Amino acid sequence: MENIFTDDYFMKKAFQEAEIAFEKGEIPVGAVVVVDNRVIARTHNLTELLNDVTAHAEMQAITSSANFLGGKYLKDCTLYVTLEPCQMCAGALYWSQITKIVFGARDEHRGYIKMGSQLHPKTVVVGGVMEEECGTLMKRFFAERRK
Amino acid sequence: MENIFTDDYFMKKAFQEAEIAFEKGEIPVGAVVVVDNRVIARTHNLTELLNDVTAHAEMQAITSSANFLGGKYLKDCTLYVTLEPCQMCAGALYWSQITKIVFGARDEHRGYIKMGSQLHPKTVVVGGVMEEECGTLMKRFFAERRK
Repeated sequence: MENIFTDDYFMKKAFQEAEIAFEKGEIPVGAVVVVDNRVIARTHNLTELLNDVTAHAEMQAITSSANFLGGKYLKDCTLYVTLEPCQMCAGALYWSQITKIVFGARDEHRGYIKMGSQLHPKTVVVGGVMEEECGTLMKRFFAERRK
Repeated sequence: MENIFTDDYFMKKAFQEAEIAFEKGEIPVGAVVVVDNRVIARTHNLTELLNDVTAHAEMQAITSSANFLGGKYLKDCTLYVTLEPCQMCAGALYWSQITKIVFGARDEHRGYIKMGSQLHPKTVVVGGVMEEECGTLMKRFFAERRK
């Protein structure tokens, strides 16, 4: 039997969160956290609504997952996020010792790779899943804002 | 007339927050945010109590200050923090475009300088204020934990 729980399957759920952010006028980044093929957190960027630079989708996902799990380490968790994490989120993910990170679009300017941030040595990273859709949503957001 | 509002004056207030964290069994890091010689946020590390790796003193200080100011950019703000910020906090401070950061003890292992994180080009940094007191409190915490 084919495994339906692929990285694309969960990235679609993160993408739905990004679309919700888009509709709210937020930079459209969404995230979900998955344990044993079960989604335990769904979040999207809320920096504008909350007037808070720390309210990135990933930060909320980490807090929410830790709350769900009752512990601060995200062992056996996978974060799906539509955009490559920034330094802040990479730093938070470092502390969480998360098992796996799957991201969509790359952020060539402010992404953690360009900025030289370090993830936890235990963390596995997969980039570029649904890269085009995730990137297009971001571009559409900024194009509409410039109008 | 002598200016009483020195970096030491405000670092003492951050240190008081670190002592509160110590008493709660938290890694003793405290922070205050100051605008025009007025303290607008006082926070301390709460990662154990909240089971949340993102609950560093600085992260709470950023959120709290933005809430107080009604805007997410910490223009004309100075953060006093008893320990050199980590990658996560440096990343958050980057987004906040904070004007000045004053830290106490250096963190040679997980501090943002060693980790290669970038602050905003506008941000001025002063390190080593009350370095010995801040560092001694940390050492005392870890020594008592090892017992």
